Amino acid sequence: MSLLVRNIGELVTNESGPGRETGPLGILRDAAVLVDGGRVAWVGKTADSPDADEAWDAAGQCVIPGFVDSHSHLVFGGDRADEFAARMAGRRYEAGGIRSTVAATRAALDDVLRARLAGFVAELHGQGTTTFEVKTGYGLTVDDEARLARLAAEVTDEVTFLGAHVVPEEYADDAEGYVDLVCGPMLEACAPHARWVDAFCERGAFTAEQSRRVLEAGAARGLGVRVHGNQLGPGEGVRLAVELGAASVDHCTYLDDEDVALLAASDTVCTLLPGVEFSTRQPFPDARRLLDAGVAVTLASDCNPGSSFTSSMAFCIAVAVREMGMTPAEAVWAATAGGARALRRGDAGRVGVGARADLVLLRAPSHVHLAYRPGVPLVERVWVRGQPV
Amino acid sequence: MSLLVRNIGELVTNESGPGRETGPLGILRDAAVLVDGGRVAWVGKTADSPDADEAWDAAGQCVIPGFVDSHSHLVFGGDRADEFAARMAGRRYEAGGIRSTVAATRAALDDVLRARLAGFVAELHGQGTTTFEVKTGYGLTVDDEARLARLAAEVTDEVTFLGAHVVPEEYADDAEGYVDLVCGPMLEACAPHARWVDAFCERGAFTAEQSRRVLEAGAARGLGVRVHGNQLGPGEGVRLAVELGAASVDHCTYLDDEDVALLAASDTVCTLLPGVEFSTRQPFPDARRLLDAGVAVTLASDCNPGSSFTSSMAFCIAVAVREMGMTPAEAVWAATAGGARALRRGDAGRVGVGARADLVLLRAPSHVHLAYRPGVPLVERVWVRGQPV
Ligand SMILES: [Zn+2]
Ligand SMILES: [Zn+2]
Repeated sequence: MSLLVRNIGELVTNESGPGRETGPLGILRDAAVLVDGGRVAWVGKTADSPDADEAWDAAGQCVIPGFVDSHSHLVFGGDRADEFAARMAGRRYEAGGIRSTVAATRAALDDVLRARLAGFVAELHGQGTTTFEVKTGYGLTVDDEARLARLAAEVTDEVTFLGAHVVPEEYADDAEGYVDLVCGPMLEACAPHARWVDAFCERGAFTAEQSRRVLEAGAARGLGVRVHGNQLGPGEGVRLAVELGAASVDHCTYLDDEDVALLAASDTVCTLLPGVEFSTRQPFPDARRLLDAGVAVTLASDCNPGSSFTSSMAFCIAVAVREMGMTPAEAVWAATAGGARALRRGDAGRVGVGARADLVLLRAPSHVHLAYRPGVPLVERVWVRGQPV
Repeated sequence: MSLLVRNIGELVTNESGPGRETGPLGILRDAAVLVDGGRVAWVGKTADSPDADEAWDAAGQCVIPGFVDSHSHLVFGGDRADEFAARMAGRRYEAGGIRSTVAATRAALDDVLRARLAGFVAELHGQGTTTFEVKTGYGLTVDDEARLARLAAEVTDEVTFLGAHVVPEEYADDAEGYVDLVCGPMLEACAPHARWVDAFCERGAFTAEQSRRVLEAGAARGLGVRVHGNQLGPGEGVRLAVELGAASVDHCTYLDDEDVALLAASDTVCTLLPGVEFSTRQPFPDARRLLDAGVAVTLASDCNPGSSFTSSMAFCIAVAVREMGMTPAEAVWAATAGGARALRRGDAGRVGVGARADLVLLRAPSHVHLAYRPGVPLVERVWVRGQPV
């Protein structure tokens, strides 16, 4: 069954090509897309479009590639609404933190976590996110991390092993012993389910040397590298990521000029997570500085129960435009093609022949509305691999 | 047909009463609501609930009163996405401003505006807004303002005559002549469709003396008073609003101590519009200062194509918590009961016997999630006067 989505007022392709406007989004107007076998089979003007088994009239509205959310922590138990409310009221809240989610996650049955995850997948699809990464990191034992990796692999190909999320309480006095565990049996148990390895390289989490051990062990086991770095202060995260050829270094709120120059000269993209700064009242990273230096900038949700419980890529776009100096076009690129680059996927984040037919029809004539109408659910219809969800 | 919504984990009533928790929201746990004839007929514990013709299981999630959006400008033609994108990119954009929307609105046929408005009503309902005000102000001729008031009255009881929105081009050299028109034939033509009169009391719009003329003329014609004031700088708006017994003064970004004291001692509520500061990169008003002084603070969208094109009350809540020092509970109260107070409605913004059965079931266990999960569409089901929409 082939499908023609026609009468698209503004098609964001994220590709150059005949009739495309200049700019990062490769916009084609009065466009149509032919989908066959779950892939994009043809892109052009509606007036020139081929026949198809089915047709969908976009009524002049905007179609974008599905959002690619390259950074999330969606397998967990419990929530931390009370901690959030206390933080917003300026009160201390002792019982919170990642460790409280670790305890709730360890206590949750597989089917509870699976049902939660299914709920998040529906939520992501409903908001136009069609490719997403999921990290482990709330298990922190060999069995629990393997369990989270396995559950995550049931819903996405993009599973990241993040045993090095935080040192668990039972290793509070033996961080090196915990890193040994992560690099050894925990990695061994998780790697079959994962594509990536990640480490939280930050004061209070793991040192650069500890992070390096974890990331090198993961790479030796065939996993791609990603890094949490430079979130809470200056640090070694970016340098480590670039040196190890990481696909992405994420957060990047505190960068020095050398960090920026290293990123610009590398294949490592810089993933900014505006939901975190929004929900923790921290200062926002400066995307403009990175873009002007030639760094590839990606946006992701970091959806997690502690520091950023949004799953809305449209919200991330709106905040990035308001707070981080991105134009609407740069932010939409970052949330689609940028995410695909952060996951080193050639088949997502673009509307071009051969790409996965992940399409989002907006109730809006232009991609600009994603920033111009913050918080408004503008997603009218979503196709994942050509199928409506 | 009576309806019982049962198994509500957290019911926000905005009322005190037996079993309610302390705090502005009057939270009742394990609750149920009986709806009959479009009104709330009973509120209590699920365990004590009466029989009904139909039942809806809330599955332990949160129910709040429908949002009351007391400030919007939803009857207009065109949009200003290009102006928004230019502003976000730091570029000047000469063709924008309210006057460009006036031109597009005057040129739009009734049925075009009516279809637009129907789209917005569906969008509001889908986001949990069940009572909303709509202002005129993009016509600025007798016939066009009357047309907008009539179209607005087709979708809401809360129509505001805002002929004093901006001086139209054709009166650029005769603002006093325009005010004469507003106070005379324009008011006469609009008043039959309107409940309120409003004026934009701000440098560049109308002086305090001009605003007073318009508001007093409206009041003499039986309309309630509301004021746009103190948005772009200190001004007379708050003093004028309090003196005239306005239901609300809206924006209030720049207040001196006397303004705050006047508001605290008055029945005039202060309506903050965080979408405006978000979308114009202006500094946010300080809700904390107002709340601590005892002022009643309301949140509204100001949905309009120029300065704030969000229609999401949940987004306004999230921004108010992040940027304006409100707790999640204060912000949810402001977006429900606060809006009702700003419209002087006793039948909206609360879940209590006799109130309109405007209920919103969230995909979340607590009202806190409206701020904790910014941008995520959390509305699961909406009843307007007891009917699902
Ligand atoms: Zn993260
Ligand atoms: Zn307004």
